[in-house]
Amino acid sequence: MDHIPTRQDIIEAHKSIINYIHRTPVYTNASINRVTEATIYFKCENFQKVGAFKMRGASCAVAALDEDTRYKGIATHSSGNHAQAVALTAKLYGIESHIVMPENAPAIKRQAVEEYGAKIYTSGNRIEDREKKMTEVLQASGASFIHPYNNYDIIAGQATASKELLEDLPDLDTVIAPVGGGGLLSGTALTCRYHDEQIKVYGAEPALVDDAARSLASGKIEGNFRIDTIADGLRTNLGDKTFAIISKYVDEILTVEEESIIAAMRMIWERMKIVVEPSGAVPLAAILSHPTIFTGKKVGAIISGGNVDLQNLPF
Amino acid sequence: MDHIPTRQDIIEAHKSIINYIHRTPVYTNASINRVTEATIYFKCENFQKVGAFKMRGASCAVAALDEDTRYKGIATHSSGNHAQAVALTAKLYGIESHIVMPENAPAIKRQAVEEYGAKIYTSGNRIEDREKKMTEVLQASGASFIHPYNNYDIIAGQATASKELLEDLPDLDTVIAPVGGGGLLSGTALTCRYHDEQIKVYGAEPALVDDAARSLASGKIEGNFRIDTIADGLRTNLGDKTFAIISKYVDEILTVEEESIIAAMRMIWERMKIVVEPSGAVPLAAILSHPTIFTGKKVGAIISGGNVDLQNLPF
Repeated sequence: MDHIPTRQDIIEAHKSIINYIHRTPVYTNASINRVTEATIYFKCENFQKVGAFKMRGASCAVAALDEDTRYKGIATHSSGNHAQAVALTAKLYGIESHIVMPENAPAIKRQAVEEYGAKIYTSGNRIEDREKKMTEVLQASGASFIHPYNNYDIIAGQATASKELLEDLPDLDTVIAPVGGGGLLSGTALTCRYHDEQIKVYGAEPALVDDAARSLASGKIEGNFRIDTIADGLRTNLGDKTFAIISKYVDEILTVEEESIIAAMRMIWERMKIVVEPSGAVPLAAILSHPTIFTGKKVGAIISGGNVDLQNLPF
Repeated sequence: MDHIPTRQDIIEAHKSIINYIHRTPVYTNASINRVTEATIYFKCENFQKVGAFKMRGASCAVAALDEDTRYKGIATHSSGNHAQAVALTAKLYGIESHIVMPENAPAIKRQAVEEYGAKIYTSGNRIEDREKKMTEVLQASGASFIHPYNNYDIIAGQATASKELLEDLPDLDTVIAPVGGGGLLSGTALTCRYHDEQIKVYGAEPALVDDAARSLASGKIEGNFRIDTIADGLRTNLGDKTFAIISKYVDEILTVEEESIIAAMRMIWERMKIVVEPSGAVPLAAILSHPTIFTGKKVGAIISGGNVDLQNLPF
């Protein structure tokens, strides 16, 4: 797609992926509602295929390829949930996937991608090394590169999470999603705007990697000085496409401290009995850290994923 | 109730607690089905109020009290999920609850019960100390003692978990539940027998506390020589009421090693993204440890609860 997804584009996107994704449940929890003095509806993308919303975008981008192009395979560089989503989408379509991973990617991540049948290529750890390797792989394979977020088909795919949420709960006051590269937040903002101009849309990001908040303040895409947040899914910067949508349609980016992310994650595990990754707990951390915005509101919060290393938990 | 619950008794029991419990979801997981070569439907009582099926039995036993008796309050001795269930039931009914806990009960368990507004009494750690204290409390308060499992109203309440499961999936081949004192397994066996004589019903217990398996073999209630299993909800022995029902209606008790419980628990956390306690993972451990029984079958497995200490995980 070569334009910002319209309402109709998102409806078509949803149809194109319906057999490749789960319709995930929406949970609310009396005890968390008491603590926050809000009514929070959690859209549980930790129960999505590959354990994260990334499956929506990846399957949407692949559905959008013409058949001849798709047949040549797909590729990306990532060591996270997007890599698993690309690999599983390829498997379901019966095509090849090529994933470039840095040398320092954890063995467990490599293994997850391998289990979906992807071909893995190891690059150096610097971003230039990865991109160089990616170019080689694309040339040799003829595969299509699937960008993790700066791609309108990806954005339309991620938008389907909030589309389902608003189908289930059409009268939300506020929706909040985590922001890393901005694919999920862009899609969320579009769906909310198309549904009801009055809904407030917030992004949530770790204060340690507050590039999105600073980008909105300065009016241009900002980088980060350090990326050692526990919310490993949110270390990325915005792209030009996601920045444009977020600038226009998101009300505010709320930042949260690391200890608040850990406390929110723990609250979700203990009270909701579900496994969420640190990035997925960032919206609740934002609600807990900025209570005046949410008190008394009916809030949709997107739990982005549930892929954690159980041998390396922060509590 | 003074008799083994009939089909109609269980229907009435369900009606009596419907406003005090959640109807919990049933989940299946493609990846676990692949590994086990069975189709497993997990009844997720980790999402039940207080995080465990115990809420069903406790609220059922309290509903069964006549109003004057109920008004005098309820009591039990327990440091586990039953104590929380009794405390929350009392709170919801607006009556007093009295919980006797041993000195060595973890602070976190005391706190959970306190938060529901129960009065806590501390006893010595030996079973005689607890029972002596319990007798004093019952005499002083006039409260009714709610036994954790050897009580037909409790059994009828626990039976509602498998009742819901069979309403959702009427054509299961096999149902498996963990067994400690036997309240859940007794109720499960009754519901399955009333639903369809052909359903196989299994109990699952840690090999370290295989009292139920030995009781079925010897024809009398057996005790345990050690109780240091990680599945802390299953350390109890059967009572005369649960033993009679289980002897008659359960096909077999399957035992599992400790490492198998931990592996099953981890598999559920990692692949299903839900938090289950060790006891709740024992049925999957049994399926993994006794594959020939379950291969190709449509299996209902009851996940008993999700209350774990996140600071003290086995992985």
